[in-house]
Amino acid sequence: MTWNLAEFASFVGGQLIGDASPVCTGANPPPQAAETDITLLDDPKRADSIVHSKAAAVVVDQEIESLERPQIVVNDPHQAFAKIVTHFRPPIDSVGEDAKPEIASSAAVHPTAVIGRGVTIGHRSLIGPGTVIMPRCKIGDDCVVHANTTLYEYTELSDRVIIHAGSVIGANGFGYRQQQGEHIPTSQLGYVAIESDVEVGAGVTIDRGTYSATRIGAGTKIDNQVQIGHNCQIGRHNLLCSQVGIAGSCTTGDYVVMAGQVGLADHVHCGDRTIIGAQAGVMDDLAGDQVYLGAPCKTQREQMQIFAVERKLPEMRRELKKLRRELEQLKGPSEGSGRRAA
Amino acid sequence: MTWNLAEFASFVGGQLIGDASPVCTGANPPPQAAETDITLLDDPKRADSIVHSKAAAVVVDQEIESLERPQIVVNDPHQAFAKIVTHFRPPIDSVGEDAKPEIASSAAVHPTAVIGRGVTIGHRSLIGPGTVIMPRCKIGDDCVVHANTTLYEYTELSDRVIIHAGSVIGANGFGYRQQQGEHIPTSQLGYVAIESDVEVGAGVTIDRGTYSATRIGAGTKIDNQVQIGHNCQIGRHNLLCSQVGIAGSCTTGDYVVMAGQVGLADHVHCGDRTIIGAQAGVMDDLAGDQVYLGAPCKTQREQMQIFAVERKLPEMRRELKKLRRELEQLKGPSEGSGRRAA
Amino acid sequence: MTWNLAEFASFVGGQLIGDASPVCTGANPPPQAAETDITLLDDPKRADSIVHSKAAAVVVDQEIESLERPQIVVNDPHQAFAKIVTHFRPPIDSVGEDAKPEIASSAAVHPTAVIGRGVTIGHRSLIGPGTVIMPRCKIGDDCVVHANTTLYEYTELSDRVIIHAGSVIGANGFGYRQQQGEHIPTSQLGYVAIESDVEVGAGVTIDRGTYSATRIGAGTKIDNQVQIGHNCQIGRHNLLCSQVGIAGSCTTGDYVVMAGQVGLADHVHCGDRTIIGAQAGVMDDLAGDQVYLGAPCKTQREQMQIFAVERKLPEMRRELKKLRRELEQLKGPSEGSGRRAA
Repeated sequence: MTWNLAEFASFVGGQLIGDASPVCTGANPPPQAAETDITLLDDPKRADSIVHSKAAAVVVDQEIESLERPQIVVNDPHQAFAKIVTHFRPPIDSVGEDAKPEIASSAAVHPTAVIGRGVTIGHRSLIGPGTVIMPRCKIGDDCVVHANTTLYEYTELSDRVIIHAGSVIGANGFGYRQQQGEHIPTSQLGYVAIESDVEVGAGVTIDRGTYSATRIGAGTKIDNQVQIGHNCQIGRHNLLCSQVGIAGSCTTGDYVVMAGQVGLADHVHCGDRTIIGAQAGVMDDLAGDQVYLGAPCKTQREQMQIFAVERKLPEMRRELKKLRRELEQLKGPSEGSGRRAA
Repeated sequence: MTWNLAEFASFVGGQLIGDASPVCTGANPPPQAAETDITLLDDPKRADSIVHSKAAAVVVDQEIESLERPQIVVNDPHQAFAKIVTHFRPPIDSVGEDAKPEIASSAAVHPTAVIGRGVTIGHRSLIGPGTVIMPRCKIGDDCVVHANTTLYEYTELSDRVIIHAGSVIGANGFGYRQQQGEHIPTSQLGYVAIESDVEVGAGVTIDRGTYSATRIGAGTKIDNQVQIGHNCQIGRHNLLCSQVGIAGSCTTGDYVVMAGQVGLADHVHCGDRTIIGAQAGVMDDLAGDQVYLGAPCKTQREQMQIFAVERKLPEMRRELKKLRRELEQLKGPSEGSGRRAA
Repeated sequence: MTWNLAEFASFVGGQLIGDASPVCTGANPPPQAAETDITLLDDPKRADSIVHSKAAAVVVDQEIESLERPQIVVNDPHQAFAKIVTHFRPPIDSVGEDAKPEIASSAAVHPTAVIGRGVTIGHRSLIGPGTVIMPRCKIGDDCVVHANTTLYEYTELSDRVIIHAGSVIGANGFGYRQQQGEHIPTSQLGYVAIESDVEVGAGVTIDRGTYSATRIGAGTKIDNQVQIGHNCQIGRHNLLCSQVGIAGSCTTGDYVVMAGQVGLADHVHCGDRTIIGAQAGVMDDLAGDQVYLGAPCKTQREQMQIFAVERKLPEMRRELKKLRRELEQLKGPSEGSGRRAA
């Protein structure tokens, strides 16, 4: 599985610029890449996204001189990077296979659960009836995965994670590009990582990342029927109430609270301790330590004033007409009014 | 299964007006009816809905002279039509039966999947663990139905359809009529037809039609937790983002896009290439080739102006009060003000 | 299981004030408590909530002299009450057990369904493939529980209840208290009770009560993907359309109608025959026999006026600016304007 950079360059038919000897053990987008990972730069203008990345090497479509790191130059960086990601996480037959998982002797797996090849299940974890754990999932200690839940391949649960019935973790993200009038699915090669002490409600869906993990931070609690899109990085100790919908690539800080039916557009960031009121619609980044309401959402202070004035709107419209009439009277017939003149 | 019109009239205890000899092979509402189908007219005022229908004959509650087609006259057209529909699609024991489906040798069905009697599964299709395919479903070639999904009886998937885990296709529509204070379910005798190259996310629900098919057009992509009501006719190459809710009998053109959490009232039509922004609420038909925002939704241009002015509302209210004060001053104490006079 | 009050006081290490002899058979919050139940008073200021309760005895944290009922005084009433509730409904291993349920000979249970220990299933009821009925559930006569549904332990269905595929009934409520920066789950010891003639759609989630039942009243119909939080008491013959979200502890009267995507904040009450329009957001109690629209919702009459004026907002803003200009002209240069003066 692990090769040096020369081998990876050859694997994707690319040209290696820089030191060929580093051995790489994974592939991740710039912010998530570890020191032995390969990463991707799909737009030369965003070369500064690499500066803060720990990645050992970068896949690019043209040499970037300012990058002080080995580069693998290819024609189609997404295709090449997808090939490398797939090398580390090979695709799994979606029908699954149920042979030889590693299950701790203190764990309890209901006989109707389906446990795929290469799955590991830690101490004292419970897997409910009808639950499907696809191949190569990793489940830590003291987890409970309730009935009829589905974990797609490579899903990772840390310790003390609870998932309620009917949830689906790790399905493909909703990403397409149009080509000759058809929507062609983009790569959905990542997985879902759920950190310790997370509780996930019933009927929740969390999509896998494009190349890497959609991540739920430790201690976060997720209510029923929440949807979390691909590549989201949810912080620690968040509370996401029922029917919240978070589009792809959103990030949240710690202790963020979203009330019921809140919606986030893609790529939005919510700072630490952001609180978002029920049914609010978030289109832009939100600074933390504040309460936001409404759609499109505003600070609580601003939105409450607007809500209050909205109820006066019919009265305001009448007053506006009255002012107009009285002003016309004041101006008198000899002057003429702007309106009559127009 | 196939009878001539005389036999159908006798079957429902109705009076046949017109040619008794045509043999009918199906029953569908006027817009979907083929040339050998029987159709239904439940309101004589809408007789023109029959003009464009290809149907061979019409079930009515009184003779309509202007109709140049055989008529079966009965007391209760809905009851009679439901009886004919049921003749063609007899009810299935909801517990299901798992005997003798026709499965292509290249298809892979997980041993824990339940495949009902009379189901057909095409070449290279994959059926995941715990998935339930109720009797008489038809699944084409190269389909993937992921784990723990349920297809109700008579569901039809064309080729290359993907359905993610936990989705439910073909449950009863939400239709009731009140009778002596109770909600009595109306007939839900139809099914769901999903055309080629459709991808359906996780936790999606699509209800069967009343008498005929709820239809998803070729190439359309549906994200997680979308709800599509009974009788909807979704066009081709639509993109329906997460948590969209479409009430019964809606129709969409081609290349329609709905962002997250959009809601459509029943019987709404969206023209080709309509784009609807997140959380918008659609109460009326939308012309195509435009972007709509807000609830109730408006064109993007109009809604953006309104959103901008909404943020000025507190300022506008203050200005209105100031204008009133200044106008009263101008009018002077001798004139008196409208308010004092009132 | 049934003890007298002296035994219960000893069981929770509390001090009994009053008659020790009454035998108690259950534990419920004040409004739901029967004459042989123990109840809970967690805030001495709300002692009047006990006046209308039928409960035989009350768990309190200090003696309340005005209470003319036996009291069990403890340090932590929630902890003590939870212990008593757990005595009556002991926790179930979440992996479930599938031995020796009582199933009527006329009922039909698919061989892939999982039926837990102590479950009872009434005459002619049907349990679909892949459905999981956890221990000690009670299912009445003529019920249909479709495929891949999960009923958590102690769920009760009366007669003629239909539950569509993929629904999850009785998962834990979303209740946490913060302690040293972590969200600690509060007790979720109750269950779900669904009365006769209720139909529940596909992908619905209904959470168990904290100590007692989340209840759905007879004849109520619930569409797909509805979420009902813990402790809700839904009335009879309600219609809850698709994707409605009802937060915890809400109550509704009879014949309430909620259109699609409506959201209710917690502890809201909707009176008999309340009608709530699509996507409305309900923050406060609603009187019955009225139609409400919008978020935050208002009466239909008020909201329709506001919607109408909203569309005039850009015009109103222009008119306001024009009035200002004309007023300044009227006042003339010699007077100066308020603005310049400021």
